Amino acid sequence: MRRESRSLLPLEGLKVVELGHYIAAPFCTRLLADLGAEVIKVEPPGGDPFRGWGAQKDGHSVWFSVHGRNKLSVTLDLKSEEGKRRVTALCARADAVVENFRPGYLERIGLGPATLQAENPGLVVARISGYGQDGPYRDKPAFGAIGEAMGGLRHLTANPGQHEYPPPRCGVSISDDLAGMYAALAVVSACWGRDRGGGKGRVLDLDLVSSVFSLMEGMLTEHGLFGWVRQPQGAAIATAAPTNTYPCADGRWLCIAGNSDLIYARLMTMIGRSDLRDDPRMATNGGRCAHAPELDEAIAAWTRTLPAAEAQDLLEGAEVPCSRLYDIKDCAEDPHFQARHLVARVQDPLLGEVLHPAPPFRMDGVGPEEMIRWTGREAGADNDRVFHEILGEPRA
Amino acid sequence: MRRESRSLLPLEGLKVVELGHYIAAPFCTRLLADLGAEVIKVEPPGGDPFRGWGAQKDGHSVWFSVHGRNKLSVTLDLKSEEGKRRVTALCARADAVVENFRPGYLERIGLGPATLQAENPGLVVARISGYGQDGPYRDKPAFGAIGEAMGGLRHLTANPGQHEYPPPRCGVSISDDLAGMYAALAVVSACWGRDRGGGKGRVLDLDLVSSVFSLMEGMLTEHGLFGWVRQPQGAAIATAAPTNTYPCADGRWLCIAGNSDLIYARLMTMIGRSDLRDDPRMATNGGRCAHAPELDEAIAAWTRTLPAAEAQDLLEGAEVPCSRLYDIKDCAEDPHFQARHLVARVQDPLLGEVLHPAPPFRMDGVGPEEMIRWTGREAGADNDRVFHEILGEPRA
Repeated sequence: MRRESRSLLPLEGLKVVELGHYIAAPFCTRLLADLGAEVIKVEPPGGDPFRGWGAQKDGHSVWFSVHGRNKLSVTLDLKSEEGKRRVTALCARADAVVENFRPGYLERIGLGPATLQAENPGLVVARISGYGQDGPYRDKPAFGAIGEAMGGLRHLTANPGQHEYPPPRCGVSISDDLAGMYAALAVVSACWGRDRGGGKGRVLDLDLVSSVFSLMEGMLTEHGLFGWVRQPQGAAIATAAPTNTYPCADGRWLCIAGNSDLIYARLMTMIGRSDLRDDPRMATNGGRCAHAPELDEAIAAWTRTLPAAEAQDLLEGAEVPCSRLYDIKDCAEDPHFQARHLVARVQDPLLGEVLHPAPPFRMDGVGPEEMIRWTGREAGADNDRVFHEILGEPRA
Repeated sequence: MRRESRSLLPLEGLKVVELGHYIAAPFCTRLLADLGAEVIKVEPPGGDPFRGWGAQKDGHSVWFSVHGRNKLSVTLDLKSEEGKRRVTALCARADAVVENFRPGYLERIGLGPATLQAENPGLVVARISGYGQDGPYRDKPAFGAIGEAMGGLRHLTANPGQHEYPPPRCGVSISDDLAGMYAALAVVSACWGRDRGGGKGRVLDLDLVSSVFSLMEGMLTEHGLFGWVRQPQGAAIATAAPTNTYPCADGRWLCIAGNSDLIYARLMTMIGRSDLRDDPRMATNGGRCAHAPELDEAIAAWTRTLPAAEAQDLLEGAEVPCSRLYDIKDCAEDPHFQARHLVARVQDPLLGEVLHPAPPFRMDGVGPEEMIRWTGREAGADNDRVFHEILGEPRA
């Protein structure tokens, strides 16, 4: 962990202002900050309400240690004249501003893209919202769960024919995350194009629903050509067998991908079912798909006799791809995660030593832990530095 | 739809070579191509085996119409001298190359990053693999389902206490998609940093497991500080109520976020439960969380009497955020998707008129449909143009 930025990071020198709250815009700017950008997060005087979410220690948000890392924090009242003047000044020197207010809010308070770009024609303005800056739903409140539902993902995250329980959510804020990732890509792309020629900024319009919808593979095209409507497949894949998730003796689940001819043979040998291995009905993937329930039952009969970790070890010894469904403890303790430095130990001045997930980008010459320069700071921690050293306001 | 690239797209002029197959690397380069980059996809003489996946029409992959759009395709045998020479020449004029072979494969055939960067020191080499370029699991075969399981997501995509059915998969190739998105961001960032100073390329190492793991929010930090292990919450949220997904009369599900005080009151009025609205036990979110099963049963008793679309209309009229779980037909027909041009009608020379999901990036002056310049082409469709016009090889 280093406190100073390093020339080794690719976005060093990129200046970004965050007018963000909760997840989508702050996740976007955290990715940019992990890649080396200078990110100034503008928070209301009481701090981003996100800081009140989830576990707290000594009055400080645990998640914010990660979510706010590598950023500077200033507090401003955007409705005050001083707040508007400072935001305008920060945007005047920035490459990009990322915001996720409700559509129309920035315009209403006099900080719309046209105003900001009048001062800085090269400014890239990235806007993230639930449904986008136009269209009939633009004014609906944005909830991540609804983006996930409306974008088509929740319909698929289900076991077919199962009606006692609702389809579960993804378990993380997936629609906010996806929109934030796309926004980060769009921001850097717009900056690359601007710096290569023309020098003009852009206004970018990202939304949760279309970010989720973008992952629907060939489903829309199949629907248009054939009228097909993709239905959920649970833990299985309709076109490959055996591949599924199986119950183990310790109540945990084991995901097994045993669907190539060679892997199938090794899997059946391991579970003591050479009869099925040699069964001519099972010689091809097509035949195995036609008898997938029979194969799944045979595999589950074996996995039910073993704890998940033991079954996984045996199958890996037989070169059968598999993994139990890792919980966060499994991730933290896994030797591969350790070897790849995916679990970083960092000093947080507010929380003490904490674990951070490393950024998902490895690059030559930069260790993943070196990308974590500091942990999320208190709201307004950088007011003095930003207002006086960066904006050059005289000290009172 | 335009056949020629337009100066309006931000990555116009960025030259990318894809040595990719299946999903992760091709998804990365498709995002870059949608943003205007010139992407040359290098396929084996028989074509990317991905082309055989899923629905086919007239012998052509339907999904590939989307997955391969805006790219040029050339066919090369990477193990032949001619193939190696041409790949080297393509990389010598490129900004970036994106590959997703097994770790070590490119080095073994003499096309490793060191070789390619010796010809072009500015080349950005993005590598995507299941587990990364090092660490004890690097040689394991990469399956998307296993990345999803090992990265921590599948553990969370489940209904608590439910053991008859396995936790479902996300329903799409989420781990490949996430790695591809991160790779696209890392590539453009590395190019921006390179062009701003130094001119040196980089080698980027992305993997499915850490891309999924990066979305685990504050869980790792909470685990380190408190020993907590986040457990699945199904369709509910442990810290807010009522918010859940409810069964409707037509067998479909409706996601309702009714957990602010004001929305709660409107929701209870709509479903005819003013007794619960005025119940002092339910006056705060904390009280409602403590009685969430009682609230969920009251809401479900109402939703079960109505088809999902009708229940959604009634709740939206009462300003209660909700959405049924859209399937692809719902997406295709939704007026907001139409108004935002998220469902593009394009002419595919191989398939006829098809529907494409628009890129998830809207930007001023560029309609989403204008970002779809052409549909996925046949393997080798651009051999002549690329080898002779771009690489300048003499025609025989």
